[in-house]
Amino acid sequence: MRKKPDLQIDVLVPPHFKKLKRGPQVILPKDIGIIISYTGVGKNSVCVDAGTGSGWLAVSLAKITKQVTSYDNRDDFLEIAEKNRIIENLENLKLKKGDVFKKISEKNVDLVTLDLPDADKAVKNARGALKTDGYVVGYLPHMEQVVKFVETLNRYAFRNPITLEVTVRDLLVREQGMRPSTKGVWHTAYLVFAQK
Amino acid sequence: MRKKPDLQIDVLVPPHFKKLKRGPQVILPKDIGIIISYTGVGKNSVCVDAGTGSGWLAVSLAKITKQVTSYDNRDDFLEIAEKNRIIENLENLKLKKGDVFKKISEKNVDLVTLDLPDADKAVKNARGALKTDGYVVGYLPHMEQVVKFVETLNRYAFRNPITLEVTVRDLLVREQGMRPSTKGVWHTAYLVFAQK
Amino acid sequence: MRKKPDLQIDVLVPPHFKKLKRGPQVILPKDIGIIISYTGVGKNSVCVDAGTGSGWLAVSLAKITKQVTSYDNRDDFLEIAEKNRIIENLENLKLKKGDVFKKISEKNVDLVTLDLPDADKAVKNARGALKTDGYVVGYLPHMEQVVKFVETLNRYAFRNPITLEVTVRDLLVREQGMRPSTKGVWHTAYLVFAQK
Amino acid sequence: MRKKPDLQIDVLVPPHFKKLKRGPQVILPKDIGIIISYTGVGKNSVCVDAGTGSGWLAVSLAKITKQVTSYDNRDDFLEIAEKNRIIENLENLKLKKGDVFKKISEKNVDLVTLDLPDADKAVKNARGALKTDGYVVGYLPHMEQVVKFVETLNRYAFRNPITLEVTVRDLLVREQGMRPSTKGVWHTAYLVFAQK
Repeated sequence: MRKKPDLQIDVLVPPHFKKLKRGPQVILPKDIGIIISYTGVGKNSVCVDAGTGSGWLAVSLAKITKQVTSYDNRDDFLEIAEKNRIIENLENLKLKKGDVFKKISEKNVDLVTLDLPDADKAVKNARGALKTDGYVVGYLPHMEQVVKFVETLNRYAFRNPITLEVTVRDLLVREQGMRPSTKGVWHTAYLVFAQK
Repeated sequence: MRKKPDLQIDVLVPPHFKKLKRGPQVILPKDIGIIISYTGVGKNSVCVDAGTGSGWLAVSLAKITKQVTSYDNRDDFLEIAEKNRIIENLENLKLKKGDVFKKISEKNVDLVTLDLPDADKAVKNARGALKTDGYVVGYLPHMEQVVKFVETLNRYAFRNPITLEVTVRDLLVREQGMRPSTKGVWHTAYLVFAQK
Repeated sequence: MRKKPDLQIDVLVPPHFKKLKRGPQVILPKDIGIIISYTGVGKNSVCVDAGTGSGWLAVSLAKITKQVTSYDNRDDFLEIAEKNRIIENLENLKLKKGDVFKKISEKNVDLVTLDLPDADKAVKNARGALKTDGYVVGYLPHMEQVVKFVETLNRYAFRNPITLEVTVRDLLVREQGMRPSTKGVWHTAYLVFAQK
Repeated sequence: MRKKPDLQIDVLVPPHFKKLKRGPQVILPKDIGIIISYTGVGKNSVCVDAGTGSGWLAVSLAKITKQVTSYDNRDDFLEIAEKNRIIENLENLKLKKGDVFKKISEKNVDLVTLDLPDADKAVKNARGALKTDGYVVGYLPHMEQVVKFVETLNRYAFRNPITLEVTVRDLLVREQGMRPSTKGVWHTAYLVFAQK
C-alpha cells in the first residue's frame, strides 16, 4: 500500500515538523508529546525553555501555551530557532540570549524544560522561576546525568520525580502482511519530571 | 529517595490527571501526548473526538485547542466526561450525544480522533469533516482493526498512514542504584495517523 | 572505552557466529537462544529443522543436542549450510533435501523448528514426527502468519501455544556516560511455541 | 482460543522449568537462552557459575555442556540447587561451597557466569579460570554495577564487552483479535559479555 523513500523519518518526524529548520540535535516529537501530556500545560500556561537549540520544543510549546521564553547562549542556534518561530508565526515565543545557570528572570511559570549538558546546575534557578506545582523537565541522554539531576531535584525539595524513556515503534501494514518495522530508534534521552 | 505506594500508576497517570473521573477505559497520557505532537494541533485548531468515553482525550485536546466536539452514544459516559469538563473548567469542549457512523456535523476541522470498536466505519464521515491536511487518528487495540482501518484510509485517499505503538518505561533512581522498573505496561492500543 | 566499527553487528551477531557463512536470511542468535531455553533441548534431544536456509539454527541446535535433521528444498541453501556444518565440525547434523509439507521421516523427536513462509502447512507432519510433550516452534515475521499458525496448532491439538517477540537492546558504556544505543533492531519474527 | 490462569508466568517460565524448585531470585529462561547463544557453549564446553542461587542457570548449562561447577557460599541455596540437579538427573553439575572472590580452582574453562552483587570483584579470578577466547558473563540488575563491571573487564584486558538487555514480549492470539499483552516484565538484569 504505502511507498515511502524513508519511513523511519516519517515515524519520528511527522509532516508538520518537516518544514522546520534543523541545526543542532532536536528534541523529537515523541518526547515533545510526552512533555506536553505529562506536565498538563495548556492555553494559560507560561513556560521557560533552555537551551533553545533548533527550537523544536520551544515552538511546539508556544503553539499550545500562552507564553514561552527560550534561552540559549549561542547566537547561531537562536537564529535557527528564530526562523522556526517565523515559519510557525508565533508571537508568544521569546528567544533570549542568556545563561540559565546564572539567571532565569521569569517568575511564576508553569513549566521549565532543560535540555542542557549540566541540567542539574539549572535546577536551583528553575525552582526560583516556577510556581507551586509547576514542573521542571530534564531531557538527559545519559544515565549518570539522570542520577545527578534526580539527586539535585531531591536536594531542592522537588516532589514526585519520575524518569521516563519514550519509545515510538511503527508497524508496517502492507499487502504481504503486517509486522513491526525491522529497525528503529530505541533511545534519544531520558525525561525526568518533578513538581515544585 | 522516593517512597510511593503505586509507582506504576504514577508512571502512566501523572498528577494532573488524577483529579479526573475514570469510568470506561481511558486513553492514557502516553498516547494523548503523541496524538498532540504528531498532529500538530494548537490554539487555533478545531477537533472532533469519538467516542468520548471518560473524556480524557477530549479534555486534553480542549486544554490546548480552540474547540473540541466529542461524540458518544452513551449517556452514562457523557455524564462522566461532563464532570471532567467541569473539573478542568473548559468552555470550548462540547459533549454531544450522537453516532459518528451516521453523521459528523462539524466541517473544516483539523483533527478527528476515533476510539471506537469499528473505527473504520467512521472514516468516511471523518473525511467529510476534515479540512485538507487535517488528521484522522485511530486508537485501535487489535492488529486486525489496524489492518481494516488502514485499508479504509487508503480507499478514502487519506495520505501517509503510519501506525505507531507508544511505550513509556520508567527508571528507578534509588540509593541502591538505578535500573528500569521490573514490570510495566507494554501495550494499550496502536495509533494510526493519516492526513486528508 | 570501546572502539568498534559496527556495534550493531556485534550486538546481533556475537563473535562465534561471524565465522559462519550467510546466504539467505538467517535466524539470529537472539531468537536461537530463546528457542533453546524455551524448549529445554539438551544433549539427549533429537531435532528436526526446516527450512535449513543458511543453517545457523540447525548448527546451533546440533552443537548442544544429540541429532539434528535439517530439511530444505534448495540445493544452494543446503550447500551453504554444509559449509557451516564443516566449519563447526558437526557430525550429528544431517542436511536433507526434501519438503516437510509432504513428509517428515523422523519419529519421536523432541523439537521441530519451522522457518517457512507457510509454516502452518507443516504442522500436521510436525505432529507426526514429535514425541508427546515435544515442541514445535514457528518462526514467523508477519502477524497474519502467526494467526494462521496458532489456529492450525489448535486444530491439531497442540497445547499451550505462546507467541513471543524477543528484543535484545545494547547499552553503551563509555567515558562520557552510559546510555542505550540510539538505534537498533526491533523485530525479526515472532516465535510461536506449542507442545504436542 | 487459549484459556490460562496466569499467562505472564507462562511467558517467562516455560513448562520444563516449572518442575524446578525456586528459592532465591532465579535467572529467567529469557536471559539463560541469550547467555547460551551469545557464548556459543556446546557439548564440549566446561563452565563455572557463581552464585548458584536456585541453580536454574547452572542446571540449564549442565543440560547442554560437558561440565558445570557452580559456587555458592550459602548452604540453603546449594540444597535447593541440589534438588534441581536431581530433578534434571545431571551428573555433570558440581555444586560447590565456596567464594569466587577468593578462588576459582577450575582452569581452562569456556564460560564463567557471575550473578553476584559485586561481580566485578570476581573478574580477576574469572580471567584466571578461562581459556583464551572464553567468555565471562555478568548478570547485573543495576546500571552502576554495569559500569563498574565493564571498567574492571577493561582493566583485566577482556575483549569486546557488550551489555545487553533482553526482553520477551508475548502476543495474545484470540478470537476477538491479536494484540500484545497489556502488561509484562521490562527488566530483570543487564547481561555483560566479554572474551578473554
